[in-house]
Amino acid sequence: MTTEQKTVEVCFTPDQFERYYTDQKVVVVIDVLRATSAICTAFANGVEKIIPVATVEEAEDYRLRGYMVGAERNGEIVDGFDFGNSPFSYMGDQIKGKTIVLTTTNGTQAIHISKRAENVVIGSLINLNAICNWLVEKQEDVLILCSGWKNKFNLEDSICAGAIAQVLVDSGKYNYHEDTTVAARYLFKSAEQNYFGFLRASSHRKRLRKLNLNKDIIYSLTPNQVDSVPILRDGALVEYNLL
Amino acid sequence: MTTEQKTVEVCFTPDQFERYYTDQKVVVVIDVLRATSAICTAFANGVEKIIPVATVEEAEDYRLRGYMVGAERNGEIVDGFDFGNSPFSYMGDQIKGKTIVLTTTNGTQAIHISKRAENVVIGSLINLNAICNWLVEKQEDVLILCSGWKNKFNLEDSICAGAIAQVLVDSGKYNYHEDTTVAARYLFKSAEQNYFGFLRASSHRKRLRKLNLNKDIIYSLTPNQVDSVPILRDGALVEYNLL
Repeated sequence: MTTEQKTVEVCFTPDQFERYYTDQKVVVVIDVLRATSAICTAFANGVEKIIPVATVEEAEDYRLRGYMVGAERNGEIVDGFDFGNSPFSYMGDQIKGKTIVLTTTNGTQAIHISKRAENVVIGSLINLNAICNWLVEKQEDVLILCSGWKNKFNLEDSICAGAIAQVLVDSGKYNYHEDTTVAARYLFKSAEQNYFGFLRASSHRKRLRKLNLNKDIIYSLTPNQVDSVPILRDGALVEYNLL
Repeated sequence: MTTEQKTVEVCFTPDQFERYYTDQKVVVVIDVLRATSAICTAFANGVEKIIPVATVEEAEDYRLRGYMVGAERNGEIVDGFDFGNSPFSYMGDQIKGKTIVLTTTNGTQAIHISKRAENVVIGSLINLNAICNWLVEKQEDVLILCSGWKNKFNLEDSICAGAIAQVLVDSGKYNYHEDTTVAARYLFKSAEQNYFGFLRASSHRKRLRKLNLNKDIIYSLTPNQVDSVPILRDGALVEYNLL
């Protein structure tokens, strides 16, 4: 650990990744509703490996080879698959020690885009303290990539990014330059007393509520439920704490 | 005027225009530091017409034909031109009744992208009440396009967009669906007591301060100094109040 400050910056959408990626050693991918919340839940429940894939075709390929496969598009389970990205599908004994393949509308795309970075880790509100502790300890330049919704800005990912940036800046080991980072921190400060109320107006929350996924929303917006730090190694996510 | 609510939405950067443009009748282009502040100042000082052009080459063409031309890139006046986009260049008798040609790093590009809309108007903090009154009266679907900085999100434009959206929503005549609009309004609420202090951390403010442009910043961040409502007609900006 050095005394030199590192930078933490926020990118609001995957299509802006190239504008904000400056060879940071760490990219944190966030998709609060629901991909990264599901991934963190899976590792807390003993899953061994998650293979994120970009397309439904790749996912289908794995399914035919006997893998457990989660596939979500537009908030719903893709026809022919057993589950989507509800965190509640990633709990229980049936996933312990398993390898799961996952494709989602936004989150797995964001992981795909980030692959160039030396370290890709998974952030969410449910593993907020765990991921922040890991980053403070790591002390390398960090880019936080929000998955957004089809390359549009979304509130819940930006707030989670702001929460992480805030902890890193408060540690004294990180500074920032981008306006996105300033904005994310302000949004986090406006939201932190009541994530659920703040996000009442969020477009994605409305989308999921229509799909009767309020239980998923409440779970995903409740910070610090798990200690997992999922990290990408050779194209698959594994639990850093077990490396 | 109908009783049906219209929508007001915010787009943070020009490269996201296509994702947010849904044939709204009105696009408000914002580039607080400094293009749209300069444009509003020019009309308040009696300029007749401003022709926004996208490239320095087009601007040079006009200059050779005897036009007054403002040209700015990266915060500085382009070599060979008389002025850039400092609002203080758009005051005084020498511009009264004149046609001015203008090209800037971000603002004139954003105007260019918006041309498809039926009405393109110019917003800034210095004409905040004037533009809001015009929009409330107009009551058509509105997209507020932030010019940003080279297609990156910036704070000052987003705050100004949030200020406009807030007034429109408060009028009861407008609602919104996008998370960008929610975020812009929260950022505005965090900033409104002290724009100058809030923007201390802004990347563009730092950029301009390095160029000794603090006077321009203070001017551009002071709301409601002029009543002008610049509007695009046949490729040139004119003063709506004089139509």
